[in-house]
Amino acid sequence: MEYFNVAILGCGTVGSGVAKILLDMLEELSARAGKKIQLVKIVDLFPKKAAANYNIPLQLFCGGSKDLSREEATRCIDEVIADPNIHLVVETIGGTSDYLYNIMLRILQSGKHLVTANKAMLAEKGNGLFQAASQHNVLLGYEASVCGAIPIIKTIRESFTGDKVLEISGILNGTSNYILSTMQHEGLDFPTALKNAQQAGYAEADPSLDINGGDAAHKLTILIRLAFGANIDYFALHKQGIEHISREDIDFAQEMGCSIKLICYAKQLDGKVFATVTPMMVKNENYLSKVNGATNCVEVKNLYGGKHYLVGKGAGSLETASAVVSDIVFAAKYQKVAVSMPELKDFDLVEAASIVLPYNITFATEDRPGITGLVTTAIGAQNINIDTVSHNRHNKEKAYFSVVTMPCTLRQIQQAIAEIRQKAPGLLLEEPKIIPILY
Amino acid sequence: MEYFNVAILGCGTVGSGVAKILLDMLEELSARAGKKIQLVKIVDLFPKKAAANYNIPLQLFCGGSKDLSREEATRCIDEVIADPNIHLVVETIGGTSDYLYNIMLRILQSGKHLVTANKAMLAEKGNGLFQAASQHNVLLGYEASVCGAIPIIKTIRESFTGDKVLEISGILNGTSNYILSTMQHEGLDFPTALKNAQQAGYAEADPSLDINGGDAAHKLTILIRLAFGANIDYFALHKQGIEHISREDIDFAQEMGCSIKLICYAKQLDGKVFATVTPMMVKNENYLSKVNGATNCVEVKNLYGGKHYLVGKGAGSLETASAVVSDIVFAAKYQKVAVSMPELKDFDLVEAASIVLPYNITFATEDRPGITGLVTTAIGAQNINIDTVSHNRHNKEKAYFSVVTMPCTLRQIQQAIAEIRQKAPGLLLEEPKIIPILY
Repeated sequence: MEYFNVAILGCGTVGSGVAKILLDMLEELSARAGKKIQLVKIVDLFPKKAAANYNIPLQLFCGGSKDLSREEATRCIDEVIADPNIHLVVETIGGTSDYLYNIMLRILQSGKHLVTANKAMLAEKGNGLFQAASQHNVLLGYEASVCGAIPIIKTIRESFTGDKVLEISGILNGTSNYILSTMQHEGLDFPTALKNAQQAGYAEADPSLDINGGDAAHKLTILIRLAFGANIDYFALHKQGIEHISREDIDFAQEMGCSIKLICYAKQLDGKVFATVTPMMVKNENYLSKVNGATNCVEVKNLYGGKHYLVGKGAGSLETASAVVSDIVFAAKYQKVAVSMPELKDFDLVEAASIVLPYNITFATEDRPGITGLVTTAIGAQNINIDTVSHNRHNKEKAYFSVVTMPCTLRQIQQAIAEIRQKAPGLLLEEPKIIPILY
Repeated sequence: MEYFNVAILGCGTVGSGVAKILLDMLEELSARAGKKIQLVKIVDLFPKKAAANYNIPLQLFCGGSKDLSREEATRCIDEVIADPNIHLVVETIGGTSDYLYNIMLRILQSGKHLVTANKAMLAEKGNGLFQAASQHNVLLGYEASVCGAIPIIKTIRESFTGDKVLEISGILNGTSNYILSTMQHEGLDFPTALKNAQQAGYAEADPSLDINGGDAAHKLTILIRLAFGANIDYFALHKQGIEHISREDIDFAQEMGCSIKLICYAKQLDGKVFATVTPMMVKNENYLSKVNGATNCVEVKNLYGGKHYLVGKGAGSLETASAVVSDIVFAAKYQKVAVSMPELKDFDLVEAASIVLPYNITFATEDRPGITGLVTTAIGAQNINIDTVSHNRHNKEKAYFSVVTMPCTLRQIQQAIAEIRQKAPGLLLEEPKIIPILY
């Protein structure tokens, strides 16, 4: 049986998991691939630390058990790239540095397959890499970069090939979903829920990218590229995080038969891409409302096959590693066939204020007659159809009421609010909360 | 661009959908496959009827618009098999006749790829076909045979290759799920729910295979073969249908925080396969309890990646056709690579009475003191641990109470019931209902 030799660059949480699976499942993997898949080299700055978790043999590391300087590691990486007997390189270093980008590019240019879990790099600078993979007729595998163990990449690339993807939505970030779920089900406020998520290992010490929607937006950018063949600017993608979601917002949503979830949504529309990452009020009837904890769920709406949901573990060492290994097997099995990207077209994003969605607007006002009429009149004047008006809460000083609109733009809503402020200065006691609704 | 020519045998619900997608998506499909995918021939007894749904050009049919005799159709099929310019044949005739089996075998032996939606044939007589595909280095594509649009076959074959499937479960039959859902949510009894399903087009005029678990068992057999490499005897697979589920059973389950679902379940155990198709009481916390209507859901538990759920449309013309077409694209794209089956081993099935599960047993007895003690003592005497005992209902003549056991076998339960009957003849006023519980 022909050999298929693999090297791993960066042996942290995911990289060490890949090494473990490659070593543990050697025979099964080789049987599946029709080639003898061998892990031949690992490069990491701190081999002893990297090897400890899963008992990885130290002789696999470049330099053995010795910690490496950055220069030594670079030399090891150069050796891997130059080695004609290495067929595939796993990149699990992480980050979006030019240093790493050039390493990834050189791997592809050397005719080796590249498998990566690096969503930030692919979302922000992926195009050059995909082009290089295409030119050099190798696989750029990135199953692990979107939602860990959930096989959404190969599902779109190999299984939805008899169909047309119309829309993608989902819960693509486990940390924020864990936080929102515990806020809802355990009655926590945001800071406590965040601290719990960190203690449970679901959030990093610096949780910014998880909380502010950046991580989910990386994943959505990658899915948009794959499903729509659309090259969009990650930095222009509209994203809003969950930092401003309060316990009260969640209670309020529950009263209205909804859960608040950080939702990614994308569709093609007249040659543009309409995409957003934002907290939404998801109706209880919608499947996504039932996805709790760190679980991820990707919903794909296809032309012929209708709605699909893929639910699973979006993170974790072995979970993500299993996705990396599936790409290794794929490359080994189908290596003579170019897995070419369909040609990418540059697509503009619809600007956030023009995105058409149904919204829930919650107003805090004085509790006196006439206000509902004034507010709803201003909304109607912007040509927004109102679905329902609920008077959710009254207390001594304030009345909270919410207006559910039919699909409209944020711009229309903001104009309506400006008009309310102009006609009745001081009426709005708080900044109105505007949250899209997912039915 | 190289041509990749396709013929369709049998242009009914699914076959005509395949023709439509091939004709409508010609360009996209060819771009994805890197080959010009062409529909060149259709064989059907009644071309005018077959062409009507989707406006399929009659000149594609063997014999043009003319209805064919069985002999003429056979001759057309022989021509397709003999034609060296046809690369792939779609079989959407259906049934498990030797006539059809031989056609399928000859297609593979002629070096053509074969794509089929025929779950009955694959479950009952598939081995010879898989062997022939392997020997002749062609693809036997069967994505459409299990759960319509849900891409479970390629997910296991191409995406879960970095992992090990431990268990498969799910709702694999949409008709029975539609019936159980409407019984639960609309308060219907079984005959009315069945009639509704037939009127809504979810159930055939003869719904036996959907109702008695046979259809689900076909799918489970196929999944067991793929995921475990295990060759089992379809006819020996334990299956129980939903015919005996009453409105009361469903109410009762709801009182206990469960929905009744027709569940397929399989795992490997010490060189045997433990598999069953049976109604289960699914706890509300379990995802499967939320899958309603004709929707299907496959749950796969993997060693590294944990639990995966794939939810989607399990039937329908274009839904199922899109799965067939994905196999056509796959064959065209990867045709030079044998998609070999891992070697199949013959596995014995664990006999139904030895399957270990937690059960709910509902007893109908007289309403008088002492009975709970007698019944639970008999259960304990069979070495069954009891989880909870609930007194769910009392009426003038009877008390209904349920015993939830820890995992045990049906044999143990039956012995306990026999002992109760022996010790207190006449105590049990109805045959106890024994339903496994899925947590």
